[in-house]
Amino acid sequence: MNSDLIQRLLASPVSFLADSGPDEDIAISSRIRLARNVRDLPFPCAAGPQEMEQVCQLVRAAARSSGTLGCPDCLEFRIGELSATDREILLERRLASRELIGNLAGGCLLVKGDGSCSVMVNEEDQLRIQVLAPGFQLEKVWNKINALDNELGKELAYAFDEQLGYLTCCPTNVGTGMRASVMLHLPGLVMTGKINATIHGINKLNLAVRGIFGEGSENQGNLFQVSNQITLGDNEEHIIEELSKVIRQLINHEKAARIHLMEHDQASLLDHVGRSYGILRHSYKLSAKEALNCLSGLRTGVDLGLFNNVDIHRVNQMFLTIHPAHLQKSAGRNLSAAERDVFRASYCRQLLAKGS
Amino acid sequence: MNSDLIQRLLASPVSFLADSGPDEDIAISSRIRLARNVRDLPFPCAAGPQEMEQVCQLVRAAARSSGTLGCPDCLEFRIGELSATDREILLERRLASRELIGNLAGGCLLVKGDGSCSVMVNEEDQLRIQVLAPGFQLEKVWNKINALDNELGKELAYAFDEQLGYLTCCPTNVGTGMRASVMLHLPGLVMTGKINATIHGINKLNLAVRGIFGEGSENQGNLFQVSNQITLGDNEEHIIEELSKVIRQLINHEKAARIHLMEHDQASLLDHVGRSYGILRHSYKLSAKEALNCLSGLRTGVDLGLFNNVDIHRVNQMFLTIHPAHLQKSAGRNLSAAERDVFRASYCRQLLAKGS
Repeated sequence: MNSDLIQRLLASPVSFLADSGPDEDIAISSRIRLARNVRDLPFPCAAGPQEMEQVCQLVRAAARSSGTLGCPDCLEFRIGELSATDREILLERRLASRELIGNLAGGCLLVKGDGSCSVMVNEEDQLRIQVLAPGFQLEKVWNKINALDNELGKELAYAFDEQLGYLTCCPTNVGTGMRASVMLHLPGLVMTGKINATIHGINKLNLAVRGIFGEGSENQGNLFQVSNQITLGDNEEHIIEELSKVIRQLINHEKAARIHLMEHDQASLLDHVGRSYGILRHSYKLSAKEALNCLSGLRTGVDLGLFNNVDIHRVNQMFLTIHPAHLQKSAGRNLSAAERDVFRASYCRQLLAKGS
Repeated sequence: MNSDLIQRLLASPVSFLADSGPDEDIAISSRIRLARNVRDLPFPCAAGPQEMEQVCQLVRAAARSSGTLGCPDCLEFRIGELSATDREILLERRLASRELIGNLAGGCLLVKGDGSCSVMVNEEDQLRIQVLAPGFQLEKVWNKINALDNELGKELAYAFDEQLGYLTCCPTNVGTGMRASVMLHLPGLVMTGKINATIHGINKLNLAVRGIFGEGSENQGNLFQVSNQITLGDNEEHIIEELSKVIRQLINHEKAARIHLMEHDQASLLDHVGRSYGILRHSYKLSAKEALNCLSGLRTGVDLGLFNNVDIHRVNQMFLTIHPAHLQKSAGRNLSAAERDVFRASYCRQLLAKGS
């Protein structure tokens, strides 16, 4: 049953990567999540299976009327009933966190079929509400998640303190409980050697820079997730406004870096793009790390207008689908690390052969 | 005048690389050279300009009647009258040695238009007669060079000792004055890690293994020149027979290595081939060393039947034409090392775009 739902998920495109969005040449996607808990029930870290089940029931009942989440037709996953590969699929699709899929006893996920909205239940907090959208559009994402939060809040008695705001398991989330982030593709700043100074500057503004899979993940494929750090003592709209200003600046810096490269070191830029395409199109063994770096090069080439037949949204999705669980689902069986490298190369060759 | 001749040379294909030959999947070309000197005139190392000029006149007069060399229509180069780039062209085409093109005072080259026969005058010896042919066919090359040697020997009083044989500048050439070699492409032995043991075994048989440009040149592009070391106390036919036996064994070893790879590590083999093609076809900066290694991978792929539209003889010629002097001739101007890498990549992209 749960496995069928995974198949339904895999059959549909990842909307926040497959659809067009503002500034999509540099901004891959925008994401906001809200941490929420229900009054009088313990945080998951202190809860037993029955209490976690109780939270699940409450959230499911509340979600039933949510038009934003697409319930009652939304997909519902019980983490404990999923295979290890299926749990990784949720992680690779950015629908679940490492923490959620580790909670076999009580973790649960409600997700709209296209992956744009979801609620993780019994993650670090009882609810982690998430909305994702393509490109750079934090305001729109905010309006949507705010609506979803209101829908759920009508049914659930959120743990809320007049002075502090929303109460959360970890003090760093208390207040708005909000983390907003934009995934940026910054090959120009990497190639011009400006990325370290840029990250240093962002950190000084109390913003965080992370890799493709969030906290603790390494930067790969020149993808950087920039998010707010502060949740307390400020309102959501203002936090988003301040973050958006910085994102806008980063986008402009990246554009300038690309122009600089085209004007002053075109051969190196084209070489990076060409080799990336050549390896994706012709190799027979490809690690995930190399694939991500090559996809970054290919995406840069698409942005520069060098590949008319390669669709940028297909490249976006490949950033996720070249990961182990997705590959194993494509192959229809478990693959060793060595087999995955061979399958990944074949997968990339075939996808690009279609397009060019 | 000399420059026009270089243009004529560049306009015609390099016959020993452009034509088909026996065992051409592994044996690129066969070569024999004979060292000869004229009685009563000093070796070039001990000769002044006038004496070297005298040798030039004698050889030219002798060559006039040579049908094998294609005289009197053969091309004649005065090394001292050539530009530095044009001298390098002769070297890259394997028509002249580093030593010959360094002799600006008296070096001279007579060469048949297709590059198959040539006589270097005032190299280490007064005459270095050379015949090159595609594939593995030392006997045929021997018959041809023997005919040319006889044609020249009728007109020139060779320095010859009844007991020692032909007298040469360096004692290692005394006797037959002959060096026979076959250029082999051995990617299978390199990839299976057997090449070092193979070279060690060959050296024990008093044969030498060298790189693409002969003595002192590094192995690049998995190309190995195997030649006889001994010239004294044996006759030419027997030396060639013994060398040919070893070459035949090497060809069989290489075939076995390729079959082994196809059966036991196909992905690595295909990956090497695919990446090589991908880089040649799509890069924008390419060093000579990387180009040679990629050409080796491409040639392996052509041998395996993976590239129906890529002609093996074109690949063979690229092993020479990606070198600096040829690139500069193609560009029509001098190029810095960085400019050459960009031009080389463009040259390879264009050649392969034609074929596939």
